[in-house]
Amino acid sequence: MLCWAVLLALIGFSQCMAKTVTVDGSKVVELLTRLANFSDHENPAVTRILFTQNDMLARRFVKNLMRENNLLIREDAMGNIFGRWEGSNPTTGVVLTGSHCDAIPLAGMYDGTLGVVGAIEAVAALQRSGFKPGRSIEVMMFTSEEPTRFGLSCSGSRAMAGTLTPEVLESKLDAGGQHFLQAANEVGYGAATTQEMLDAVRVPEGGIAYFVELHIEQGPLLERESVDIGVVTAIAAPAALEVKFAGDGGHAGGQLMPDRNDAGLAGAELALAVERHVLGTGSVDTVGTTGTFEIAPGAINSVPRDARLAIDIRDIDGPRRDGVVAAVLRSAEQIADQRKVRVASRIINQDPPATSHPDIVEAVATSADALGLSNKRMVSRAYHDSLFMARVAPMGMIFIPCKNGWSHRPDEFAKPSDIANGVSVLALTMARLSEGSWPKDEL
Amino acid sequence: MLCWAVLLALIGFSQCMAKTVTVDGSKVVELLTRLANFSDHENPAVTRILFTQNDMLARRFVKNLMRENNLLIREDAMGNIFGRWEGSNPTTGVVLTGSHCDAIPLAGMYDGTLGVVGAIEAVAALQRSGFKPGRSIEVMMFTSEEPTRFGLSCSGSRAMAGTLTPEVLESKLDAGGQHFLQAANEVGYGAATTQEMLDAVRVPEGGIAYFVELHIEQGPLLERESVDIGVVTAIAAPAALEVKFAGDGGHAGGQLMPDRNDAGLAGAELALAVERHVLGTGSVDTVGTTGTFEIAPGAINSVPRDARLAIDIRDIDGPRRDGVVAAVLRSAEQIADQRKVRVASRIINQDPPATSHPDIVEAVATSADALGLSNKRMVSRAYHDSLFMARVAPMGMIFIPCKNGWSHRPDEFAKPSDIANGVSVLALTMARLSEGSWPKDEL
Repeated sequence: MLCWAVLLALIGFSQCMAKTVTVDGSKVVELLTRLANFSDHENPAVTRILFTQNDMLARRFVKNLMRENNLLIREDAMGNIFGRWEGSNPTTGVVLTGSHCDAIPLAGMYDGTLGVVGAIEAVAALQRSGFKPGRSIEVMMFTSEEPTRFGLSCSGSRAMAGTLTPEVLESKLDAGGQHFLQAANEVGYGAATTQEMLDAVRVPEGGIAYFVELHIEQGPLLERESVDIGVVTAIAAPAALEVKFAGDGGHAGGQLMPDRNDAGLAGAELALAVERHVLGTGSVDTVGTTGTFEIAPGAINSVPRDARLAIDIRDIDGPRRDGVVAAVLRSAEQIADQRKVRVASRIINQDPPATSHPDIVEAVATSADALGLSNKRMVSRAYHDSLFMARVAPMGMIFIPCKNGWSHRPDEFAKPSDIANGVSVLALTMARLSEGSWPKDEL
Repeated sequence: MLCWAVLLALIGFSQCMAKTVTVDGSKVVELLTRLANFSDHENPAVTRILFTQNDMLARRFVKNLMRENNLLIREDAMGNIFGRWEGSNPTTGVVLTGSHCDAIPLAGMYDGTLGVVGAIEAVAALQRSGFKPGRSIEVMMFTSEEPTRFGLSCSGSRAMAGTLTPEVLESKLDAGGQHFLQAANEVGYGAATTQEMLDAVRVPEGGIAYFVELHIEQGPLLERESVDIGVVTAIAAPAALEVKFAGDGGHAGGQLMPDRNDAGLAGAELALAVERHVLGTGSVDTVGTTGTFEIAPGAINSVPRDARLAIDIRDIDGPRRDGVVAAVLRSAEQIADQRKVRVASRIINQDPPATSHPDIVEAVATSADALGLSNKRMVSRAYHDSLFMARVAPMGMIFIPCKNGWSHRPDEFAKPSDIANGVSVLALTMARLSEGSWPKDEL
């Protein structure tokens, strides 16, 4: 029933070139559905944790798909997988595209996977069209974008960008007490030491001419405004804070109200303060979330003794985001003072935002325009491997709408027609950045 | 080093009787320390869950102690343990005293245990004094005052009071999926059916002339005011509510603030509203606690979709307590409305307070006065088996100070001298209620 075939015939008026790609959205959906089967939970839920059996099966699926589409496969020491389409200009850096296939527990089937399977289909569409790449084109699957196993997001891209040290990587342990290298060795990746592994993964200077990632928006804007394509101009990097309050606890019956220092209520006040400070910037681009709120002992007849909050704050404006972080930390101190609880706060991470490269922004917007697709420039508020790739390559992203902006849940959904649009824009964007040739150039 | 020997010689001026009990606080502490060894966690923490190996060892310890003190042992079908000292007037109901020996995870060594071990020592002190009971005196250990295993507090006393039905008891399952009867059968208690078990446990009409329980205060008032003995006039029964908020969740980066319906923030507002409504009564006797606050999915990069709060509200004034319950439920609706989340609230229990019987209040106060101990009438804000015993017998309680009002924690502490005071008051109170004879009556 899913049979959105998009036949796109484009006439470049100024150059009199015909550039055609044909993308079958239903075929991409079928591939994504097959990939979704490799899951620790029953579909539609998808759970795929780094280097588990289902992750390894998904990797085999991706490599087979690359092979079927005549891509030359290479894997690095951390399990980043690359499929190369050799261009006529092998001396310059590659045009790289890709995303991830791991999935947090009970996630959906589009986050990440679209940017891998869709990218292979984009290459296939270019091949079918007769396009010949100038710069080589590579499609990749990043290792472990999600932090599930080791508590570290974007392991593969962080390492490619040279931002990881052996100390950090070996300090992150999974539930079984293993660090990344040990887990990688078990499935045939890795190296003799973590340092060797990281050295082998790092992108050489100038190795990537452009990096572009196709992704579902994970926000509601495109759907709400009926816009086909989001042209990402920047990635709002998150800051993450952990705040712990500690009181003395007590019996919920026996301890009178004036005698309490309830850590749970301190946490409740801080969660509301986060919201207040975020709204206080007056900008819709500032977001803040208390996504983790744990209290102990957590019994109905006990006054909470401990509260632990993990707080995520993002903005496209770095200094404004930092202002909110500082205000939240001040509120934590004030609340602790007023409620006579102890407080310990720490910044887990506070990364700068990343800006898309104008060449890619231009290439994406032009491609969407050429395809007759409505598009808008927008900010990615979600975190992606692109954030780290921006440190070693000109970076850009392409968004398509997803239902209600939902992601990280089983009912995550993107329409096949939107998928076809995104894959088509990615194909034309890569063609542009590759500076190759179309069969009808001579017409 | 602990050697508080309290020698109490009392002269009843009006009746010219000498009544003497000698209680060694350090001996009671030694017994409590030995009992504390039966714990799933290392001391000073005490964890003792119904019908586990350590609970069974504690039961053996209690029965041995009863036996050593010449008490006739009986156990009922639910594992309530009784040690009887036969009186000269066997036709009237008994004077019953006791408490519990189970302990929530990581609790201390005095809550409950004092009212069992201390009661056996009170009987021993009366026996040493030459007192002869009129009404028989029984010391008991209640089964499962704490709700840890089956989520139901005071199972033993509820059943004795006839307030439990087979349907309720069989609906409460432990982590292994067993209900009470199945667990009881495994350790040699129980009956053919839950109904038979409950029938066998129920107290016969008039079977108990008086019930009195010795306990640490679990509040700070006695210590703060340097009062030796609390004469409990009422038990503030808790109401327990569960409130669940449900929003739509979303990505902490991708979902803009105006698009959110954050269930966690609704919960935070409600927790603060509970505090506000409780303080709003203007009475120190009203207490309210959000002891459980769980959010899901609970990931730093996810807007909370679900929040579950368990709220405990107590007051010695039933209607005033009910007013707070109603106000909290209204706030839950208002917050849900404002934050556009769904809400489901339910009252888990809402028991009436229990009033101590004037005979017992009088007996406790007179005994404390006679011992030269300062005492005050007060309310028990904690929940005890006494609450349910009050439904089938005249009830009273004796409190002693505990450090900082702490309980349900490893550093729960009561001074040996206060323990000796409490045991002595219990002994004289039982003697009074038993209407027996002292050896010097004839002098």
